[in-house]
Amino acid sequence: MEKFKVVGKPLPRLDAGEKASGEGKFSADIYLPGMLWGKILRSSHPHARVLHVDVNRARRLPGVKAVLTGKDVAHIRYAFVDTPRYPADQNPLAVTKARYIGDELAAVAAVDEATAEEALSLIRVDLEPLPAVFHPEKALLPDAPLVHELDYRGKTVWEEWGASGRGEFEPVRRGDNISARTSVSFGDVEKGLNQSHHVRQDRFETPATAHCALEPHVAVASFDLSGKLTIHLSSMGIFYKRFILAKVLGLSLGKVRIVKTYVGGAFGGKIDLFPYEILAGLLARQAGKPVRIELSREEVFATTRHRHPVMIDITTGVAKDGAILAQDIAFVVDNGAYRGSGPVVIFLGYTFHIPVYRVANIRYQGLAVYTNNPVKGPQRGHGAPQIRFAVDSQLCMIADELGLDPADLMLKNAREKGDVLYGTGDTLHSCGLKECIERAVAISNFKGKRKMPKSQGSKRTGLGISTCSMFSGAAYYPFASAAIVKMHDDGTATLFTGATEMGQGCDTTLAQVAAQVLGLKLEEIRLVSGDTELCPIDLGSFLSGGAMVSGKAVAAAAADARDQLIKAAAQLLEANPADLKLADKRVFVAGAPEKAVSYAQVIAASIQRRGGDSIVGKGSQKPVAEADYYPSLAKIKGRWTEAYGFAAQVAEVEVDLETAQVKVLKVVTVHDCGFPLNVQIVEGQIEGCISMGLGQVLSELVTLEHGTVYNPSFLEYHLPTSSDTPAMEIDLVHSLDPKGPFGAKEAGEGTVAGMLAAVANAIYDATGFRVKSLPVTPYLLSKGLGRKSPGISPNR
Amino acid sequence: MEKFKVVGKPLPRLDAGEKASGEGKFSADIYLPGMLWGKILRSSHPHARVLHVDVNRARRLPGVKAVLTGKDVAHIRYAFVDTPRYPADQNPLAVTKARYIGDELAAVAAVDEATAEEALSLIRVDLEPLPAVFHPEKALLPDAPLVHELDYRGKTVWEEWGASGRGEFEPVRRGDNISARTSVSFGDVEKGLNQSHHVRQDRFETPATAHCALEPHVAVASFDLSGKLTIHLSSMGIFYKRFILAKVLGLSLGKVRIVKTYVGGAFGGKIDLFPYEILAGLLARQAGKPVRIELSREEVFATTRHRHPVMIDITTGVAKDGAILAQDIAFVVDNGAYRGSGPVVIFLGYTFHIPVYRVANIRYQGLAVYTNNPVKGPQRGHGAPQIRFAVDSQLCMIADELGLDPADLMLKNAREKGDVLYGTGDTLHSCGLKECIERAVAISNFKGKRKMPKSQGSKRTGLGISTCSMFSGAAYYPFASAAIVKMHDDGTATLFTGATEMGQGCDTTLAQVAAQVLGLKLEEIRLVSGDTELCPIDLGSFLSGGAMVSGKAVAAAAADARDQLIKAAAQLLEANPADLKLADKRVFVAGAPEKAVSYAQVIAASIQRRGGDSIVGKGSQKPVAEADYYPSLAKIKGRWTEAYGFAAQVAEVEVDLETAQVKVLKVVTVHDCGFPLNVQIVEGQIEGCISMGLGQVLSELVTLEHGTVYNPSFLEYHLPTSSDTPAMEIDLVHSLDPKGPFGAKEAGEGTVAGMLAAVANAIYDATGFRVKSLPVTPYLLSKGLGRKSPGISPNR
Repeated sequence: MEKFKVVGKPLPRLDAGEKASGEGKFSADIYLPGMLWGKILRSSHPHARVLHVDVNRARRLPGVKAVLTGKDVAHIRYAFVDTPRYPADQNPLAVTKARYIGDELAAVAAVDEATAEEALSLIRVDLEPLPAVFHPEKALLPDAPLVHELDYRGKTVWEEWGASGRGEFEPVRRGDNISARTSVSFGDVEKGLNQSHHVRQDRFETPATAHCALEPHVAVASFDLSGKLTIHLSSMGIFYKRFILAKVLGLSLGKVRIVKTYVGGAFGGKIDLFPYEILAGLLARQAGKPVRIELSREEVFATTRHRHPVMIDITTGVAKDGAILAQDIAFVVDNGAYRGSGPVVIFLGYTFHIPVYRVANIRYQGLAVYTNNPVKGPQRGHGAPQIRFAVDSQLCMIADELGLDPADLMLKNAREKGDVLYGTGDTLHSCGLKECIERAVAISNFKGKRKMPKSQGSKRTGLGISTCSMFSGAAYYPFASAAIVKMHDDGTATLFTGATEMGQGCDTTLAQVAAQVLGLKLEEIRLVSGDTELCPIDLGSFLSGGAMVSGKAVAAAAADARDQLIKAAAQLLEANPADLKLADKRVFVAGAPEKAVSYAQVIAASIQRRGGDSIVGKGSQKPVAEADYYPSLAKIKGRWTEAYGFAAQVAEVEVDLETAQVKVLKVVTVHDCGFPLNVQIVEGQIEGCISMGLGQVLSELVTLEHGTVYNPSFLEYHLPTSSDTPAMEIDLVHSLDPKGPFGAKEAGEGTVAGMLAAVANAIYDATGFRVKSLPVTPYLLSKGLGRKSPGISPNR
Repeated sequence: MEKFKVVGKPLPRLDAGEKASGEGKFSADIYLPGMLWGKILRSSHPHARVLHVDVNRARRLPGVKAVLTGKDVAHIRYAFVDTPRYPADQNPLAVTKARYIGDELAAVAAVDEATAEEALSLIRVDLEPLPAVFHPEKALLPDAPLVHELDYRGKTVWEEWGASGRGEFEPVRRGDNISARTSVSFGDVEKGLNQSHHVRQDRFETPATAHCALEPHVAVASFDLSGKLTIHLSSMGIFYKRFILAKVLGLSLGKVRIVKTYVGGAFGGKIDLFPYEILAGLLARQAGKPVRIELSREEVFATTRHRHPVMIDITTGVAKDGAILAQDIAFVVDNGAYRGSGPVVIFLGYTFHIPVYRVANIRYQGLAVYTNNPVKGPQRGHGAPQIRFAVDSQLCMIADELGLDPADLMLKNAREKGDVLYGTGDTLHSCGLKECIERAVAISNFKGKRKMPKSQGSKRTGLGISTCSMFSGAAYYPFASAAIVKMHDDGTATLFTGATEMGQGCDTTLAQVAAQVLGLKLEEIRLVSGDTELCPIDLGSFLSGGAMVSGKAVAAAAADARDQLIKAAAQLLEANPADLKLADKRVFVAGAPEKAVSYAQVIAASIQRRGGDSIVGKGSQKPVAEADYYPSLAKIKGRWTEAYGFAAQVAEVEVDLETAQVKVLKVVTVHDCGFPLNVQIVEGQIEGCISMGLGQVLSELVTLEHGTVYNPSFLEYHLPTSSDTPAMEIDLVHSLDPKGPFGAKEAGEGTVAGMLAAVANAIYDATGFRVKSLPVTPYLLSKGLGRKSPGISPNR
């Protein structure tokens, strides 16, 4: 393998200094001159008709500069998904009905925070409470209250790229609470099950969880004299956000500038456009002043989307040797009061299953159901933790029942390089899954330690294994990634990328790619990112396309600049461009390193001999490179991504049978990320996933009763702390994906999903209790272990 | 001529709203968190040895964070000109000697302005006064005090492009005060004079004048954690400023970011790097905090460079028909205490003469002389007002003596298209000079009104004419201009240009060029300019290269983007790219306008079909396009510019013989700017030049006595006011230069030069008094008119 000087190295992050010193600016640090404070009045009913919102007293309060109610925004509908099949279903302020506790009813902007708060208290809202529904199974009953009475059919702007307003929509009466449905089928499931040696049927359930970004949600919006909106916010994809924000505000895309500050945690929770962001823009326009809206911690917990709670019914049939012959899966999600990403997550449940195991016959059905719970949205893995929990928990049960080792069963069914995935048509050009399983088993001594004597007093230890996969960026309409590399007179370079640094390290990783291609040191690359005005288009930092898609665009832009450098140097050195190499900011003739010119000389020569060109390179990359998907994504229906990352994880737990406390002692993760562009950053991502997965399996859930969030604070929401953190051992498989820059593909999102089944299976190994519902709180576990009175709260 | 929709239109300026509303930020508006205030201690002696600078008490004052003296910066030498022949001669703080009143001795940075002032008062400076010299003629005497005892010979970084430190220099003992000399000779001057029908010899003198930008000089410098300096300042050329600032601070170019705010007037006075800018950087580095230095109005007047006072000895011989047979010119400038732009201005005196008239035999000698006066630097025209005043005043005298009309004499000698200029080798690819003269004569009724009865009481009117020329950008090492055009998803575009808007309107003009090429409206172009990190290299907004060089780069970048648009559209429309046209953000088939796609569709298609490319165009332009001047400007010695602008001006004045007051009633200007990209902006530039020229000829001078500036304020320095402003009539000649974008070339700098002789000649027409020294104050004029006791102050 070629020796690299910059990529593949555990180089320190470019943002480390600013973040460690406190000099880095987050959106909460943005204060503009003359700025107003915006506040939002929210519904305290889970389901209610809005009879009247009287804002007269609020409007008359001195210092109040703008007031908005549902009537002002009735023409604005938006949603995460907005297609003819699933048209937008949310207004930035409730118009006819409030549909969950926290639904936005009115917004004000005032000269200071106290005045804005007082103005909210002066707004009188007449609500007529309606029967509400909080569980998808109840919401599917024929007499259930309808969360949405109307749907809208017509043409969306998503079809008419570039249009700034909405198409025409016809309201259509709805008869049920089904928000979205999907199904994928391959082979003959009935036949497959009939032919199976062993069949097992289970239901698994996962709860709503919160993203728990430490930085609260803040938007600061201001209009300039030309009518252009600049909005500072914490984002995961500035071009996606610009696209829908411009659309809902009726502005041309060029009239919206998104400026991203540092992002203090996102985890999928800052992809979506939120009402507070739209309202900041609308209030700023009405007031003619900048407006800042900062959500309180309670608002963040209750109103900014949760992970989808899912009920997964899964029937699996295997041959005697363990080969999976058939799988029948129903994936039913509560998507809350608005559709959010419901239509997406029910398909993702399939896409995160199919790359892992070969399944001869499959039927997958997804259903998203409206309830009067808070809205759901993407959260790290977005469907992957749920489906991986179900599939790998059940596979472990089947292995036990067949007397097989679960790791062997996984290996038996694991996919290999060259497989083509049914339903997406994606080809696995690289696949290190088997190596991941084998190494994880070896490193953890899985076979040796499992089922061995391991009790000490009331404590029992156990091991569990699981696998996972994640795509490397996915096509969505109509985005791609591009990059610009501007060389400076001293041979250093500025990289312009629209990719969004949100803590995952993409600024550093992308700069490494540019530095490697250009023969520069990392510190010789400066970055301009996070600004739609300055940066070229980018897919955004979700869908795990940072390395594969944005990285490929950066590599292409750097290669373009490099080729220009070489061309100019060839003229100076009177050499053949093909004979030239780059190193240490010098271009030299291969085999004759004394025949060299510095980059500075080459650039000066380029300026003076080649028409003034100081060297600017550009490059771009589509998520699915070969596909021509204009004018519609429908043209590549199925194709999803260029590459899949893989991992296998083994968790070792210790369960105290007396207290029903689970302690995860150690997690071994073997990850195939193709090639780690920065080992330290890849490992950091995995460590974060392990910690997040730990919360999801053991302690985290949004406690909801009748639509009320009972734990909207870090005190009550049980995020794992550093003292809960297990020992972590990480190993990386270099499968060198041919499509990725230097072989890189997804890193850092998949392994949150593996933790759930690994820990659940380890708990079984330690205690014999089969976890089918999360989180495995002491209350649940003590009940599972047969205690009649656990003597502890259900919430702990 | 092709009909243009955007260029050639008098469109409102892009910066109008922000400037009119007060929202626009100037450098004086920049305040950074934790910023310190910097102040400079200056010499009150015109010439003194620095014995000791004691800063101990200042350093101990609470709140003082950084203190610098000459010892700290002795290793830093810099200058406007820094070549082996003319090496840098200035330190940011005086090291061995103070050489003028105002010379920098020490600098401090403190937590607030008052503390910084107090710190200055605590610095004790021991100076040993030395004999001083204030006039070039005295400075040239053998026993004159030497302003600089040493010179330095060696290799400069200007030769080693990209090197960040200085080369090695040997100090060399000087024997005189000659700062620089130049000479150009063509033909045989003695023979030409001998063959002449009429010969005339005169000396003309022009004074030091101030730039009088309303915005004071401010620099705000800060270092980030990577050691990168960001400096906000009011600049005319951000890349030039970066180049020398990086050099003097010993930083790599990429480690210096210049951010230009709006510029509140520059007029050549903000090209140079000043000690206060270097000191802001040095203090910021020492203190580890941002440092702001804002010069007081007095400091601006006395220490930020003046226009060069020149003594011009000119001998001209003409044939009977008025053809100029020979000219012998000596151009001697006082370049003050440091070399500044002395070596440049003495050559410019030639270059602003030679494009105007054909001179059969010429000898031109330039000499720049050190004195203990304040330093001189570029000021609008930079040599042109001085030489044009001399040449056209004398030509008018010769015409009178020969009984010819001065306009006819000018026409007789005026250059024409196709002429090749001796000394520069430039070819006049366009030249509307004769048309300018003819139209100016016709519009002003020059021949009818001149020499006609025109007295009314004590008042006499008169008319004068003059001509001028200015290049359109000039080659200097190693700069050129480039531009980037980034298309947005809605078909609008962001233009990245390093050109420097300083009130002259280049942001608007360049955006017009991009809009025209791209088929967009002006408001559909957004601009990113004035930032070395974000923008590609640019020549800077001096040397009048904005339209010709930066404009051509912008046109090329826009054309590159347009070609990409057309290529993507051709694929969509299944048409031949050659058949496609652009208009109204649509690409259509010529002759079949219904076969069209919107830019938004094309860009979406480009992203989805062409690898994610959202369309980025780039372009560049050298000042002298064909020349290959790597590795040294010497390779194009002589070649100067691609095109020259021309103008003829007629001034009509009224002189009150009793008060000796001159009132300029009307100025007719006919300007050949090739093609006016924005008529309103070109006219605005001419109006500004007329007002500035008015000051230079009638009222402005820096009153210096023994090195002291006696009028360092707007109260005492007599800038013309709006009530002095004459009626202005402007006509534009469209000579459509083949090298310029849409035919455009220089606009807006030349006509400051024509005013001087036009008014001087008009005063002669009204009074019979020959003006040979400027400004024509009532004191001077009443003496000229034979009054023994003018009864008025010499300064008014």
